[in-house]
Amino acid sequence: MKGEILKMLSRAEGYTSGEHISEQLGISRTGVWKHIQSLREEGYTIVSVRKKGYRLEHSGTGFSAHAVSSKLRTEGIHIEHHEKIPSTQTRAQRLAQGGARGWTVVTADEQTGGRGRRGRPWSTKKGTALAASIILRLDKLPQEAAAITPTAAVIINDVLQRYGVDTRIKWPNDILAEGRKVCGILTEMHAEMDELHYLIIGIGVNVNETDFPEEIKPTAVSLRHLTGQEWDRSALLAALLDELKKRLPEFEENGFTPFREDWLRYSTVINKEITIHQRHQSWKGRAVDIREDGRLIVETETGQKEVISGDISI
Amino acid sequence: MKGEILKMLSRAEGYTSGEHISEQLGISRTGVWKHIQSLREEGYTIVSVRKKGYRLEHSGTGFSAHAVSSKLRTEGIHIEHHEKIPSTQTRAQRLAQGGARGWTVVTADEQTGGRGRRGRPWSTKKGTALAASIILRLDKLPQEAAAITPTAAVIINDVLQRYGVDTRIKWPNDILAEGRKVCGILTEMHAEMDELHYLIIGIGVNVNETDFPEEIKPTAVSLRHLTGQEWDRSALLAALLDELKKRLPEFEENGFTPFREDWLRYSTVINKEITIHQRHQSWKGRAVDIREDGRLIVETETGQKEVISGDISI
Repeated sequence: MKGEILKMLSRAEGYTSGEHISEQLGISRTGVWKHIQSLREEGYTIVSVRKKGYRLEHSGTGFSAHAVSSKLRTEGIHIEHHEKIPSTQTRAQRLAQGGARGWTVVTADEQTGGRGRRGRPWSTKKGTALAASIILRLDKLPQEAAAITPTAAVIINDVLQRYGVDTRIKWPNDILAEGRKVCGILTEMHAEMDELHYLIIGIGVNVNETDFPEEIKPTAVSLRHLTGQEWDRSALLAALLDELKKRLPEFEENGFTPFREDWLRYSTVINKEITIHQRHQSWKGRAVDIREDGRLIVETETGQKEVISGDISI
Repeated sequence: MKGEILKMLSRAEGYTSGEHISEQLGISRTGVWKHIQSLREEGYTIVSVRKKGYRLEHSGTGFSAHAVSSKLRTEGIHIEHHEKIPSTQTRAQRLAQGGARGWTVVTADEQTGGRGRRGRPWSTKKGTALAASIILRLDKLPQEAAAITPTAAVIINDVLQRYGVDTRIKWPNDILAEGRKVCGILTEMHAEMDELHYLIIGIGVNVNETDFPEEIKPTAVSLRHLTGQEWDRSALLAALLDELKKRLPEFEENGFTPFREDWLRYSTVINKEITIHQRHQSWKGRAVDIREDGRLIVETETGQKEVISGDISI
């Protein structure tokens, strides 16, 4: 109920009367007042003016559990925000092992040891980047889980495009704009051989960066750079989480299939001559398709190959 | 070097002279003496008698890190033993996340929350059962890891047969004798979509139990019951670890293939009419083969099926 009141206040332009809240939510005005008190105790600044009602002091483009939660349109998402943390992914793992439920999301304003695929570092500069790790508990086999990475890529790509950014998906786990990385996805799982315990999807988005560390400068780009304006990270994260929450049940039911056509349309590698860099070798071919389990199909002189793992250069 | 001395003393019948140790290991007699002192500080009782040498007071059939380590014939296995712990599997997970190296093994004399597949309880009574969780870091893809369960089953079965126990493998993860469960194997993994971080193989063996909890009495059996004698758990675990350490590199290189024939020979289900119990259904068929990835092939009226997950009754 408190969450409902927070959402009403958060979406209102000016004041919202206690009477209106009471009618909308079917609780007494004393009930409304008690919830408002409780929200104030949690740290929300709620102004009340006689005959006008209540108004939430917005925290601007700040990134906080409150800011994200108040902007979510779907239920059942729990945000744990940190000002500074080594890695949201590692924290989410710890929570999942402790039994945290699905759709628990760890966010951070700054990561001191953020990581990408295969333990590579992922820069998360204070106040500018979006870092979130989502715990998922899906009714899938471990073998079926790998395809969640391209599925999430399609969903995230859709959200960014809706914001007017011309993004594309680069196999296996990046989202590019103007050929540079604007978002990375890191999926980890814990499983028995025939039962998935949990999945953690880590999302790192370059949002308000005006500059990048030297080593990633040639390959990274921020939403701010792409659009020329500052972004509200909490609004963006809420939009991403809402869309994932809405569409991942489709993945749980039907796998990657319903997302595959969109993936092919968004892909930067399909029908391109590419080089695959793997741990023990590099080789060339033409990317032609993606399998239902997320493997990339590459045509080479000696026939078709299925690629599970590797980095691509075009 | 200290470990070498411990092994020599552990295998000796009576006393071992300082001179002999010094010659065998190529260190000075003062060096030998210093290592002996250091072992004593670690808690080993080492008797020294002039003109005879050193003798290790054996801890009998006790189960301890010392007892297991001194009986190991292979290098590079580190034992962390607990008198009492909720679960060796959970402790091993925590260690693996903290960066513990492969072949770190967590053992316990008593588990208060031991678990089998799918979170089912696994009884580990103080002083009678063997519980061990082995951290492995293998150069395999997550998709290739599932077959380590039948591979480990073959290796463990071989060790038990060498001890004269007539054991068989029941798909997916049990070892039976006289049709009842003497050992269970629980494999868990943590992985990115295309990179295995670590595997943990949990082994639970019913060793010296004379009785079982009511609910498992009809289906469980102990080595003591089967052989009429008390077993030395530390010697058994050392034998299991030595054999796994010796033969798992073969799995890392060539997968389940080199173990498949043995598995088929040991299996209780091949060429039997079985019922498969899965989460949402039960169905009947004839088990005919096992795939390289560990899936069971079952012939039904409507054709062959591959089984990843489920419990079997015959």
